[in-house]
Amino acid sequence: MNIRQLLGSKKLSNFFWKTYREDPQNIEAESHRLLHRTGFISQVSSGIFSFLPMGWRSMEKIKNIIREEMNKSGSLEINMPVVQPAELWEISGRLETFIPPLASFMDRRENKFIIAPTHEETVTDIVVKHVNSYRDLPFILYHIQTKYREEPRPRGGLLRVREFEMKDAYSFDMNEEGMDVSYKKMIQVYKNIFSRCATEIVIVDADSGAIGGKESNEFIMLAESGEDIILISDKEEYSANVEKAIFIKNEFEQENQENIRTIDTPNLKTIDSLQKELSLPYQKFLKTVIYNADDKLVGCVIRGDYKINETKVRNYLKVTELTPANDTELNNAGFTPGFISPYDTKKIKFIYDDSVLKGPGNFVAGANVIDKHILGINISKDLNPEIVLDIAEAEEGFSAIDGGILRTNRGIEVGHVFKLGDAYSKKMSATYSNQKGEEKNLLMGCYGIGVGRLLAACIEANYSNNSMNLPLSIAPFSVYLLALQIKDEEVKNLSDKFFFEIDKLGFDVLYDDRDIQTGVKFNDSDLLSLPYRIVISKRSIEKKQIEIYVREDKKTYDYTFDEVIKFFENI
Amino acid sequence: MNIRQLLGSKKLSNFFWKTYREDPQNIEAESHRLLHRTGFISQVSSGIFSFLPMGWRSMEKIKNIIREEMNKSGSLEINMPVVQPAELWEISGRLETFIPPLASFMDRRENKFIIAPTHEETVTDIVVKHVNSYRDLPFILYHIQTKYREEPRPRGGLLRVREFEMKDAYSFDMNEEGMDVSYKKMIQVYKNIFSRCATEIVIVDADSGAIGGKESNEFIMLAESGEDIILISDKEEYSANVEKAIFIKNEFEQENQENIRTIDTPNLKTIDSLQKELSLPYQKFLKTVIYNADDKLVGCVIRGDYKINETKVRNYLKVTELTPANDTELNNAGFTPGFISPYDTKKIKFIYDDSVLKGPGNFVAGANVIDKHILGINISKDLNPEIVLDIAEAEEGFSAIDGGILRTNRGIEVGHVFKLGDAYSKKMSATYSNQKGEEKNLLMGCYGIGVGRLLAACIEANYSNNSMNLPLSIAPFSVYLLALQIKDEEVKNLSDKFFFEIDKLGFDVLYDDRDIQTGVKFNDSDLLSLPYRIVISKRSIEKKQIEIYVREDKKTYDYTFDEVIKFFENI
Repeated sequence: MNIRQLLGSKKLSNFFWKTYREDPQNIEAESHRLLHRTGFISQVSSGIFSFLPMGWRSMEKIKNIIREEMNKSGSLEINMPVVQPAELWEISGRLETFIPPLASFMDRRENKFIIAPTHEETVTDIVVKHVNSYRDLPFILYHIQTKYREEPRPRGGLLRVREFEMKDAYSFDMNEEGMDVSYKKMIQVYKNIFSRCATEIVIVDADSGAIGGKESNEFIMLAESGEDIILISDKEEYSANVEKAIFIKNEFEQENQENIRTIDTPNLKTIDSLQKELSLPYQKFLKTVIYNADDKLVGCVIRGDYKINETKVRNYLKVTELTPANDTELNNAGFTPGFISPYDTKKIKFIYDDSVLKGPGNFVAGANVIDKHILGINISKDLNPEIVLDIAEAEEGFSAIDGGILRTNRGIEVGHVFKLGDAYSKKMSATYSNQKGEEKNLLMGCYGIGVGRLLAACIEANYSNNSMNLPLSIAPFSVYLLALQIKDEEVKNLSDKFFFEIDKLGFDVLYDDRDIQTGVKFNDSDLLSLPYRIVISKRSIEKKQIEIYVREDKKTYDYTFDEVIKFFENI
Repeated sequence: MNIRQLLGSKKLSNFFWKTYREDPQNIEAESHRLLHRTGFISQVSSGIFSFLPMGWRSMEKIKNIIREEMNKSGSLEINMPVVQPAELWEISGRLETFIPPLASFMDRRENKFIIAPTHEETVTDIVVKHVNSYRDLPFILYHIQTKYREEPRPRGGLLRVREFEMKDAYSFDMNEEGMDVSYKKMIQVYKNIFSRCATEIVIVDADSGAIGGKESNEFIMLAESGEDIILISDKEEYSANVEKAIFIKNEFEQENQENIRTIDTPNLKTIDSLQKELSLPYQKFLKTVIYNADDKLVGCVIRGDYKINETKVRNYLKVTELTPANDTELNNAGFTPGFISPYDTKKIKFIYDDSVLKGPGNFVAGANVIDKHILGINISKDLNPEIVLDIAEAEEGFSAIDGGILRTNRGIEVGHVFKLGDAYSKKMSATYSNQKGEEKNLLMGCYGIGVGRLLAACIEANYSNNSMNLPLSIAPFSVYLLALQIKDEEVKNLSDKFFFEIDKLGFDVLYDDRDIQTGVKFNDSDLLSLPYRIVISKRSIEKKQIEIYVREDKKTYDYTFDEVIKFFENI
């Protein structure tokens, strides 16, 4: 099975391709610049693109790799529709809560339809209709289908878009053990896919977000342009997205408990300023932030040497919106902005990070009175917290749970897998009868790869200067055959001959047979930077030699005609 | 390139497949019944389906055939988005006029987006952005993409749906000659595609409908369940969709002109009843119908031996809605329902079919007075028509323009090609500069195949009783390996052996290794009716023979083990 043969070699004189010297607007990523300049994509609207023939070849190659690896694992390809009845999403409870909000329209019979951003509901509905018994299990269904999401800020070309093709797979198992087997199988499939795309990835613990479920992992390609922040232990046994990352918190010896007293702290509204004024270390402070969580105020308290991780707070509260309360909201609730305190208030619910229990005690906190703070606060005596959990954000240099030190990296999420458990099957009554005839909920996993983003990530990982440098497996063509002085009949005949012969060996050749300036041809070739470039010119005929540039070696070789053929035979 | 190898052989014990004994609701086509019963599709909503693994294999095979033939012709695959800004459709003028009306939604920035039913606007926009010169021409771009249309009445399973995958191609040329070359090239590609799907088609003249342009042809598969009516001359040199079909109208000797006189015709409101009462042939009558055409009344007059073709009227008037006016509308406009007359009225515009000029004259028409008709009407003397053209509907037995007789057939439209000319390029400023540096409009063609409908049409063409009988090229698998007494180790080993060996020969084998009743296995196999069925059982081991059923021959053969392998080697 050779996708190159289906896509075929092409002559540029008959191809639809143009390169660009100008950058598109709002460049935030090198892959965006290169995708535009190499004529891979054409923007239709913000976050919505067409793929031109050159770019679509790479997309087809990626999709083929995905299909081959998915099929090899026994997963079965299906196809589910883009337009779906809203009722399905009512049952799952995501119609109003999905983030970003669903795009929807009313059909001519005034029924509401949504444009699918993902397919958990649809696949579960299929399974409800077609699965009855443990004999039907387990299985993994997948499709590669267009998705639409109302991204608030599309950016970086294909890195964050509104419409995209996603490979999404869904596993169905009888029990936790089966679900774990499917989950691990898919992780291996993903490793194979990314390895065939020559993309090095880190697998990290991740937050499940709008998809739900208990456990999830992201496949992250490290890249400065990435918008995900991940923490990797230098012992390499722990890595996680910052939204999810945990760490070992510093413990301090408990001091002897002092009494509470109020001090004047005129205009000292931040811990930084207080810390300087009082000459106390950060861990001596309690940081309190009041949030508006789905229109209800909630306080969060953390030790001064840590920051609050809002994703952890949001997940604990199960809310969709979480923003720091503004001064009006604070005043209305009886709080004094800048001097907020969890002390002596029952007005709202407070969540404490467990760092507050790890010493040193005798904390400094706001007095909830303008220009005043309290000293000598001790947690159990003075605050008696009901909710204590981990809401701290991991940072560079913190202690990892594997005994190493956490390092911060930026990366691009190229895949995301979720153990959904019964999150959907319960709501949608997706059950099977087990060997004893009992009805049980199916346990699900779901597994996604954004095809276009993977292409962009591969470019981010491989580009240099003005060269795209896509790996052989997904480059639009394998060979750039650059014919100079093409109007010379001998050159044309020799070029034609090598075009056909290298094509016959199973390589897809882009034959630059255009009668244009030499400089333009070399520029275009450099930009596209295919794995192999062959130059044929009058000189080739004179010297009976052809020049081959091998990108991997960064070297040019002068080969006789026979050596050229042998070279490609031996790849 | 072998698609069977990508899709692979499968064991039913690891496959997601179930057949059904019950029919779905609202069966209007045998293909719908069979697609449901063989577990090819699963309905999500009216006119919206998921494809299950068995059905998706056939879809993939069809798409592969389409891709191979399109690529072979030099057409280039691209991808355009499903969701599109409404502005694009404002420029083309189709935002409000497309039939059926576009599905649309507002994005979070309150910009209107539509869900694309076709891609003329998008592809033209690409060409505006990326094409400048005659040197870039000609080319044909295509994609296979999800479409959505607000069909008023989805029916027949995959025959008429709301969401579907369509292969749509678009050609761009410098001039009429170039456009004709592209058009003919695509017609040949379509012939190849349908022939590889073993579908016999008739190419007919067709109406261009909502797509526009001057000339169009449909590829029709003849089938009783089809909703298109086509007329084919028995000389086979002319065929057309009834919406478009023309014919040679009967001419009658002109009678000597009589004077106009009014007669009493109590309760004789139809030509049938008048014709009997007056003992006159049909051609002696003028049939007048008043239509409400986009909220304006228009009259149509045709000779009594013909019927009005409303598509022709609609195209002439360039209106989207055309319905016979109701009695209230008629009364308000001063007409007498049942006795309408074009005589002596300037109230509305009248369109005359040219049959009224072909004799015999002295026509009978309504008097526009209750229970009265007029005799002796002569066209130029009494009516003096301004608009005379062909608005007649062709029927069985009429004379074809090739000298033959028209025969009526029902069929399914599986492909439609259009010469668009400059219909889009003019409105969207899609120009190129020619050799002289002049800006000229590009000339376009567009070419569509609905993938799912083609699958349904292939079933309609091939089914028998409860068997789907898809041709080898698009059957979900090539071979059904039916293992009986699978619990017997010898049977299992022998079945495994042949499963692997036939697979190795390049055939995709569906291996029924389920431990279930023999009758169920044979029923499932009959329903799916793959081109080859192999039965392996204890008897095979005893007699050292295997039973092969060859669907094409309708015969069963008993072959030795070696002969089985040879049989498949020789296919």
